[in-house]
Amino acid sequence: MEFNLIDRIRRRVTTRDDVVLGIGDDAALLQPPAGRQLVVAADTLNAGIHFPLDTAAADIGWKSLAVNLSDLAAMGAEPAWCTLSLCLPEPDAEWVDGFLDGFLELAGRHHLALVGGDTTRGPLSISVTVIGLVEPGRALRRDAARVGDEVWVSGSLGDAAGALALMEAGAPPAALRERLDRPTPRVELGRELAGCAHAAIDISDGLLADLGHVCHASRVGAEVWLDVLPCSPALADAFEPTRRQELQATGGDDYELCFTAAPEAAAKLAVLATAEVVSITRIGRIVEGGGVRALDAEGRAWRPPHAGHEHFRS
Amino acid sequence: MEFNLIDRIRRRVTTRDDVVLGIGDDAALLQPPAGRQLVVAADTLNAGIHFPLDTAAADIGWKSLAVNLSDLAAMGAEPAWCTLSLCLPEPDAEWVDGFLDGFLELAGRHHLALVGGDTTRGPLSISVTVIGLVEPGRALRRDAARVGDEVWVSGSLGDAAGALALMEAGAPPAALRERLDRPTPRVELGRELAGCAHAAIDISDGLLADLGHVCHASRVGAEVWLDVLPCSPALADAFEPTRRQELQATGGDDYELCFTAAPEAAAKLAVLATAEVVSITRIGRIVEGGGVRALDAEGRAWRPPHAGHEHFRS
Repeated sequence: MEFNLIDRIRRRVTTRDDVVLGIGDDAALLQPPAGRQLVVAADTLNAGIHFPLDTAAADIGWKSLAVNLSDLAAMGAEPAWCTLSLCLPEPDAEWVDGFLDGFLELAGRHHLALVGGDTTRGPLSISVTVIGLVEPGRALRRDAARVGDEVWVSGSLGDAAGALALMEAGAPPAALRERLDRPTPRVELGRELAGCAHAAIDISDGLLADLGHVCHASRVGAEVWLDVLPCSPALADAFEPTRRQELQATGGDDYELCFTAAPEAAAKLAVLATAEVVSITRIGRIVEGGGVRALDAEGRAWRPPHAGHEHFRS
Repeated sequence: MEFNLIDRIRRRVTTRDDVVLGIGDDAALLQPPAGRQLVVAADTLNAGIHFPLDTAAADIGWKSLAVNLSDLAAMGAEPAWCTLSLCLPEPDAEWVDGFLDGFLELAGRHHLALVGGDTTRGPLSISVTVIGLVEPGRALRRDAARVGDEVWVSGSLGDAAGALALMEAGAPPAALRERLDRPTPRVELGRELAGCAHAAIDISDGLLADLGHVCHASRVGAEVWLDVLPCSPALADAFEPTRRQELQATGGDDYELCFTAAPEAAAKLAVLATAEVVSITRIGRIVEGGGVRALDAEGRAWRPPHAGHEHFRS
């Protein structure tokens, strides 16, 4: 099956000037620009684990690239090239066309070239490796949070987890399902944050867990104010406040950015969020010590009633 | 399961000076050398398709990297970095340790740093993306064969396919099974060929099929002399001449290099093959037209009695 499908993919990809040789040889040949560092991330999605089995092919294509671009966004990198390893139960050309619709639509928005990979036979699984570029010293690292920093998130939280919670009982509202199936990698925001924010991470495992990774790497603690976590109208409509707050604090798969910045950066951040047409919200601060403390509106410590974000993650 | 296994991997990897940030952040950060091109390949191995189900974990680790390094070898590239996406039915630490034994042994031989990736839950599958480096203009491409070139292969052919054929009837000789489980990527030879040979490809689908890809890309034909195809003592012992010749001409999974070079390069090739301690054999020539013609000792056209290499390839 390999050659027909690869030809099908090759006919549809767009290229870039720095791709010397794309799909079709033993390997791709790329000309990186002088004076940049490479940023490399790899993420795999498996059917029934990382996306529901009823997910449309185009949405799977979109999401398999989005979760990888989100990693580049969290580093402040500019996307450049990617490889795709597509494992399919059978060589279904129609499904592949649908998959490419979503994958290449998102790739096109970020001027990303698909330059290689392979197709194999087996249970549906998609492995993508993305390569981006960043100016030396400007990458946003998990270990760069400083005591006194403010903690911010982009967009709104809990929508993807809300969609999953409602799928158990039937069909979730379209606005929530869209957030689960077609997350928006915050690539432009990440680029602007490079050189302005300190640490960053994308929210795939849930806000408290992911901010915990930043704290661990940076050897600091964090305080998060639950009552100011950004909430979409669809999520507010669909859940009562207690459950909603839990989804916002612990739900994964949102692929928003959580980042820390010095208080003096607040004015600059407000300007760039407006320019990038994505809201950002100050949700806490970095403190001495370790771990993340979530506080309710009365300043009392809060613990999630359920044990973390487990759905559709391994 | 993700974090424990990733920590286990991180503790064992070796690094390079050009890895600014390795496993543990959203992405790796790498400093490419000035004046080089990047060479990128991605290959996936699925259990029961690309390796027999009884393959040892260490051999799976070795092979999953070897098939990728072989792609770099076929481009004449120097290995630098890789990512690993490991999909496992369950978080089996002992199996992962065995896998790493093989994977990291081969990585160490080629000064390759594992810089990122992920672990997921699902049927056993390994996706690797390798990134290598090559001087501009020196990469070995499939489309660079010229009429009048001589065709060469490294090492010997048919051993891996011979092992598979004998597994149907019981245990193959260790020397053949070793070639199936632990193929040697011809990285050093590929590096020497860059700037000396014209076209190159690694033999994964079988000599005639892979040389056919070179001919197609280069818009030329090829003649191959079956009676001079290099043969290991173990293969000669295990099969009668007709069947052996078929395995050599059409068997995949050997990961030897097939390359073309001008006749004037023959003396230089002989010297470098001796220096690299791998034999090379002249097996045919590039002609006008298209397709590959295999000729027996009497110069008669030969066709494989079976339809190509199907075992353990999708």
